[in-house]
Amino acid sequence: MLKLNFHPAGRHFLQIPGPSPVPDRILRAVSYPTIDHRGPEFGALGLKVLAGIKSIFKTEHPVIIYPASGTGAWEAALSNTLSPGDTVLMFETGHFATLWKKMAESLGVKPEFLGLPGIEGWRRGVQADMIEARLRADARHVIKAVCVVHNETSTGVTSNIAAVRKAIDAAGHPALLLVDTISGLASADYQHDAWGVDVTVSGSQKGLMLPPGLSFNALSAKAIEASKTAKLPRSFWDWTEIIEMNKAGYWPYTPSTNLLYGLSEALDMILDEGLENVFLRHQRLAEACRRAVRAWGLEIQCADSTVYSPVLTGVMMPDGIDADAVRKKIYERFNMSLGAGLGKMKGRMFRIGHLGDCNDLMLMATLTGCEMGLKLSGVPVAASGVSAAMDYLASHTIPLAVKAAA
Amino acid sequence: MLKLNFHPAGRHFLQIPGPSPVPDRILRAVSYPTIDHRGPEFGALGLKVLAGIKSIFKTEHPVIIYPASGTGAWEAALSNTLSPGDTVLMFETGHFATLWKKMAESLGVKPEFLGLPGIEGWRRGVQADMIEARLRADARHVIKAVCVVHNETSTGVTSNIAAVRKAIDAAGHPALLLVDTISGLASADYQHDAWGVDVTVSGSQKGLMLPPGLSFNALSAKAIEASKTAKLPRSFWDWTEIIEMNKAGYWPYTPSTNLLYGLSEALDMILDEGLENVFLRHQRLAEACRRAVRAWGLEIQCADSTVYSPVLTGVMMPDGIDADAVRKKIYERFNMSLGAGLGKMKGRMFRIGHLGDCNDLMLMATLTGCEMGLKLSGVPVAASGVSAAMDYLASHTIPLAVKAAA
Amino acid sequence: MLKLNFHPAGRHFLQIPGPSPVPDRILRAVSYPTIDHRGPEFGALGLKVLAGIKSIFKTEHPVIIYPASGTGAWEAALSNTLSPGDTVLMFETGHFATLWKKMAESLGVKPEFLGLPGIEGWRRGVQADMIEARLRADARHVIKAVCVVHNETSTGVTSNIAAVRKAIDAAGHPALLLVDTISGLASADYQHDAWGVDVTVSGSQKGLMLPPGLSFNALSAKAIEASKTAKLPRSFWDWTEIIEMNKAGYWPYTPSTNLLYGLSEALDMILDEGLENVFLRHQRLAEACRRAVRAWGLEIQCADSTVYSPVLTGVMMPDGIDADAVRKKIYERFNMSLGAGLGKMKGRMFRIGHLGDCNDLMLMATLTGCEMGLKLSGVPVAASGVSAAMDYLASHTIPLAVKAAA
Amino acid sequence: MLKLNFHPAGRHFLQIPGPSPVPDRILRAVSYPTIDHRGPEFGALGLKVLAGIKSIFKTEHPVIIYPASGTGAWEAALSNTLSPGDTVLMFETGHFATLWKKMAESLGVKPEFLGLPGIEGWRRGVQADMIEARLRADARHVIKAVCVVHNETSTGVTSNIAAVRKAIDAAGHPALLLVDTISGLASADYQHDAWGVDVTVSGSQKGLMLPPGLSFNALSAKAIEASKTAKLPRSFWDWTEIIEMNKAGYWPYTPSTNLLYGLSEALDMILDEGLENVFLRHQRLAEACRRAVRAWGLEIQCADSTVYSPVLTGVMMPDGIDADAVRKKIYERFNMSLGAGLGKMKGRMFRIGHLGDCNDLMLMATLTGCEMGLKLSGVPVAASGVSAAMDYLASHTIPLAVKAAA
Repeated sequence: MLKLNFHPAGRHFLQIPGPSPVPDRILRAVSYPTIDHRGPEFGALGLKVLAGIKSIFKTEHPVIIYPASGTGAWEAALSNTLSPGDTVLMFETGHFATLWKKMAESLGVKPEFLGLPGIEGWRRGVQADMIEARLRADARHVIKAVCVVHNETSTGVTSNIAAVRKAIDAAGHPALLLVDTISGLASADYQHDAWGVDVTVSGSQKGLMLPPGLSFNALSAKAIEASKTAKLPRSFWDWTEIIEMNKAGYWPYTPSTNLLYGLSEALDMILDEGLENVFLRHQRLAEACRRAVRAWGLEIQCADSTVYSPVLTGVMMPDGIDADAVRKKIYERFNMSLGAGLGKMKGRMFRIGHLGDCNDLMLMATLTGCEMGLKLSGVPVAASGVSAAMDYLASHTIPLAVKAAA
Repeated sequence: MLKLNFHPAGRHFLQIPGPSPVPDRILRAVSYPTIDHRGPEFGALGLKVLAGIKSIFKTEHPVIIYPASGTGAWEAALSNTLSPGDTVLMFETGHFATLWKKMAESLGVKPEFLGLPGIEGWRRGVQADMIEARLRADARHVIKAVCVVHNETSTGVTSNIAAVRKAIDAAGHPALLLVDTISGLASADYQHDAWGVDVTVSGSQKGLMLPPGLSFNALSAKAIEASKTAKLPRSFWDWTEIIEMNKAGYWPYTPSTNLLYGLSEALDMILDEGLENVFLRHQRLAEACRRAVRAWGLEIQCADSTVYSPVLTGVMMPDGIDADAVRKKIYERFNMSLGAGLGKMKGRMFRIGHLGDCNDLMLMATLTGCEMGLKLSGVPVAASGVSAAMDYLASHTIPLAVKAAA
Repeated sequence: MLKLNFHPAGRHFLQIPGPSPVPDRILRAVSYPTIDHRGPEFGALGLKVLAGIKSIFKTEHPVIIYPASGTGAWEAALSNTLSPGDTVLMFETGHFATLWKKMAESLGVKPEFLGLPGIEGWRRGVQADMIEARLRADARHVIKAVCVVHNETSTGVTSNIAAVRKAIDAAGHPALLLVDTISGLASADYQHDAWGVDVTVSGSQKGLMLPPGLSFNALSAKAIEASKTAKLPRSFWDWTEIIEMNKAGYWPYTPSTNLLYGLSEALDMILDEGLENVFLRHQRLAEACRRAVRAWGLEIQCADSTVYSPVLTGVMMPDGIDADAVRKKIYERFNMSLGAGLGKMKGRMFRIGHLGDCNDLMLMATLTGCEMGLKLSGVPVAASGVSAAMDYLASHTIPLAVKAAA
Repeated sequence: MLKLNFHPAGRHFLQIPGPSPVPDRILRAVSYPTIDHRGPEFGALGLKVLAGIKSIFKTEHPVIIYPASGTGAWEAALSNTLSPGDTVLMFETGHFATLWKKMAESLGVKPEFLGLPGIEGWRRGVQADMIEARLRADARHVIKAVCVVHNETSTGVTSNIAAVRKAIDAAGHPALLLVDTISGLASADYQHDAWGVDVTVSGSQKGLMLPPGLSFNALSAKAIEASKTAKLPRSFWDWTEIIEMNKAGYWPYTPSTNLLYGLSEALDMILDEGLENVFLRHQRLAEACRRAVRAWGLEIQCADSTVYSPVLTGVMMPDGIDADAVRKKIYERFNMSLGAGLGKMKGRMFRIGHLGDCNDLMLMATLTGCEMGLKLSGVPVAASGVSAAMDYLASHTIPLAVKAAA
């Protein structure tokens, strides 16, 4: 019989940028007995999570909850709003933006991929001015949607979505704005309605602190209108019937009951801490992490300090160092999982996740593992990043018990 | 704070034909800490469940495990094998066959819907001779696939899939055979390879005793070949990359880690009991249930005794009785959920699930709840179905501890 | 590796008179991370359960919660109130009263054991008039305490504790009244203060629906006073320091943190249902069970209908039938555990538990298992007890959702 | 409704010297459905844990498992072997030795309390030569037992038990040797048989990684013999009947079923890692911790480097610093629980637990919390203890995956 966990003694440190460590409260909620998804208890659960998730997206419009992992919600966003052959403008912010573009091609949509040269786009996020220029040039409105990633999980760069909205408006262009914040939601501030996003895509296993298996589409009235004429074939992902049945707390097909239990618990936890407090906590931990990286004398992948991600930090390795060998060393010696460099950054960086149910000492444990692992891997380390992070955390307080009600 | 369960005191009896009651062992496995889906522990888990699930489908070919509920696996079967405008032959066995047909239309496929008149098809299952006749008439091989439901969850009728295969072969027709056994797998015998099925669709929340959220496509070499030229747009559901990455135990996108823990445990439980023993247990419970229905003087929805479902039993109400009112009465008085009549059978029947982690006394509890509820609802009851079921169970033994190793 | 549960498929029916089936909510609470028993979170938990448990005993006085199983609380009641060589008056109501007497002897106390002849005391409970007579005869007040069992787990007889109090008072005797309601608490009405009990002993694994491992002493002012001069050596069981530290929610030594989590959850469940509703539910289920036994033509162990236990029913076997063979048959064939006859009743009866988190269909499952098992064991069965129980349950309602607040 | 855990976001660090952090595997095992403690499944569980626990104590003799917390096992050791008025020789190693002595007095035994002057005994552990001298002086063998603490939880000093045995033998004295290793078992090497111990007392919530609620007496033939004439009253704690019933895997009264599930899992974990590997892991972590304390320029409570505890480290505060204020600061700012100074050391030290399911990064998190907290509390810190600990851990390897089988 395979043991379900064969980590060595002590707690494994799961410091990848998602799945984030699932809190015990949520794991226990997930293990609650499965009920009839057509019965009255389920309806009450459904109504609760459908209402609660809106507050996380900061939207008054419907949020679709799919019993499927995040990649599916990417597909849903495209297939509900576009028709075969439609042109979409995407921006190369990193590996996941690239995968989304590849998906668009698979679905029969024509993506145009804007970006900065080399890996610059992977270090600076979306350039709203480039989008504006491209849209201004599209006098015939061939472009049907602009697709951008809010928090690039592959790089640790968070793009300015409000600026993209302004760019579209400045260009007077009718394109829809589709945004992926799979790894940003509930960790970095996100305002679906205020920022004028038409479809926001997200997933469960990041800031929401759930196991993977749920994903989301937050909608706008314009997106719903677009779905009425969009011709890409779809059934499982189709919004129409889901929106209709969600009104009573149900789904047209079997929802992922046990993960919805978990979502209910996650919403209680987040709203109890206070969503803005959650964001402040993430920012503080991220700053401590960056101070460690700088003390080590290593480069942060994100080259623009105005768009540092509060979710994860990409750490670039000096020439000649294989980042994956460093990660392997840390994994084997210190029982900690870090994120690999992906795509163009493969072997050149590793990623430290500090999202979800994370706190000061979890981050410090992570940084000590990194610091020991860097040294053991022969990476020249200028000074103790751990000390730098401790200095920051000790001198910058967020009261631990700030509550929403306070 | 919403309580996750507000059933009254004592255990709720979840006797719908899926989700089936999830055993404690599986709920606990599902609550195991989420791990890195790119790390070595996950790879070992992946390889185990991918190997184990093949033994349940009785296949040597790849089985795709989707992090999505069963309806998605329907879409996957169609979109991987068909092109826009393709004709498929489907058979009306009940509500779910009808929904699958509706999905095919949404995806741009042209379903031809064979069936018996009125509700006869809903009571007798697939008629292989009708399929054979239709295929013989299709000299130009316009029909690309035959789609049938193995165990109709809406009726309690199990169709003869081997006969459908023979019908296709007898007609010398190259159509693919796509089969839905979402509610049949691991409860009723199913032989993907021996029966010559090209794609079998299934889900987690029935015989596999898991919460909803995983679904399956078992493939044949012919199906994989067909996927290379199939033109329906697809990305999330696409088999190619999944098959490739599954070789090492991984998935191209984030899998549903915690439900895979549950699958690992479910496989241990089923293979420990012995798959054939599981089937015998289901048959025995189903026969006891049917004896109760007959004793009550009520009609079993399945009108052909050779295709009784071992998974569920549909109970038809006399004229003038609203089956949903009976169900509601039983729910409120006896804390038990039964399945509703669906589609053409709405209000005319209810469905008793006796699948998955079910045993003699769980069935007897169910039947006492039904018998009391029928009487309280004014349904004339000829004799005690409970007594009839007890007589059968007491006189027909399956040794409780028969093990695979024995 | 030993599997922790090797019952065959489906849920095991644990119908012994304790441990009772532990609800999922409580099992999950019990698995919450252990915390510092000297920290502020623990103090809040401690205060909550110490307050809540008083409402269950219906007392304003301290209730001691021991991190030990129920037998320990017996010892605590004796060793805190008595001195070596003290005489106590005990009444033979069954096996557990006999064990308590044996314990008293082991501790150096001199028990005098009143009782009816033969097994009559095991069928009729405490005879208050016999106690009164004996106390009247004790002019010198040699007897220091009267010890009786409220709900005899070995017989299904519930004694009238208020009557014992009246007997003591009528005799004008200063003896303390010590009562064991290990299996009665939270299932049968119990009024520590109103009935003038000095020490009530109870445990966690019965009406409180917890796993075994906690036990209780509810005190009176008189008992606390007595403890100041009682000379039996004691340390672990000593009340003094516990009472003092409990004021802030703590214990002098390490408490059973995880079972206290469970107790917190159990209190929420019981007080949410309403304690009086819990009693009504138990009475109704017990009556249904007795109707089944009578229909079978078997004798109920309790021979006095005014003291039937709502917790369990003892079923006597006809001459020539080995009750343990019947139990074994039921266990092996129907995956259900029943209680054995104990002491004088060994092999002559079995006991059906219908306590704690029990409801109509759980009881009915139990009765079907009994009825089938009796027939398979060759016990002559006059009529269907299952039918009799169904008739009663269907015609006698307690609204399932009656809440304390309502 | 009281939330069972109101720690702020992220994992709480429970770094007290017990309860130690309970691993998820064990918490899940503890939540398994309670079964009949008289049924065959329970017997198999009982036999497994009774055999397994012997290997942890390194004994061939019976080990009693009590459904009670550790303090109870102290009482059991005394009351099974001694008679009222017996003299016992105890050694003042710290707060818990003092509590045990107080208990002996409560039970009517006469303890003679050896010790070094002032707090020296609290810093150096048992002095075997003092015991030998005292026993030599006891020509009439008035002393019936020598009672010592193996690992003083209040100080972080581990005494040399083999040396105590040698001292007794050298004195040619027949006294029994009773040892408390409540916090040492399964963390520090312990050899019940080889060291000639007569009764070893231990508990569940330390090296065994369980919640509190189980405790142990490991016996010798001589101890069992002594119990036959020992006159202290006892019933719950009495060994005789337990030893007899344990032969078949059962207990005379209701055992703590769910904690025994946990023990079964803990035994699997420990024996899978390898008991000697567990000890090496503890030693390595303890040495890293001590290097941190020394780097800070603080004094380690244990003044004799040959008896440093691998379980916990006592950290003495400079004059003028209230250790409890430091602990409170760390608790509030960094969500970590540390142990308080107890008895003579109250306010003068805090204790860092590094026992049970602990690993490198959990220790490093702990040390960063301490270092930040010390600075914030105004404690002069000479150098970074965190850096010193990292240096040690990075340069001293125990392969993480060493398994018993390897």
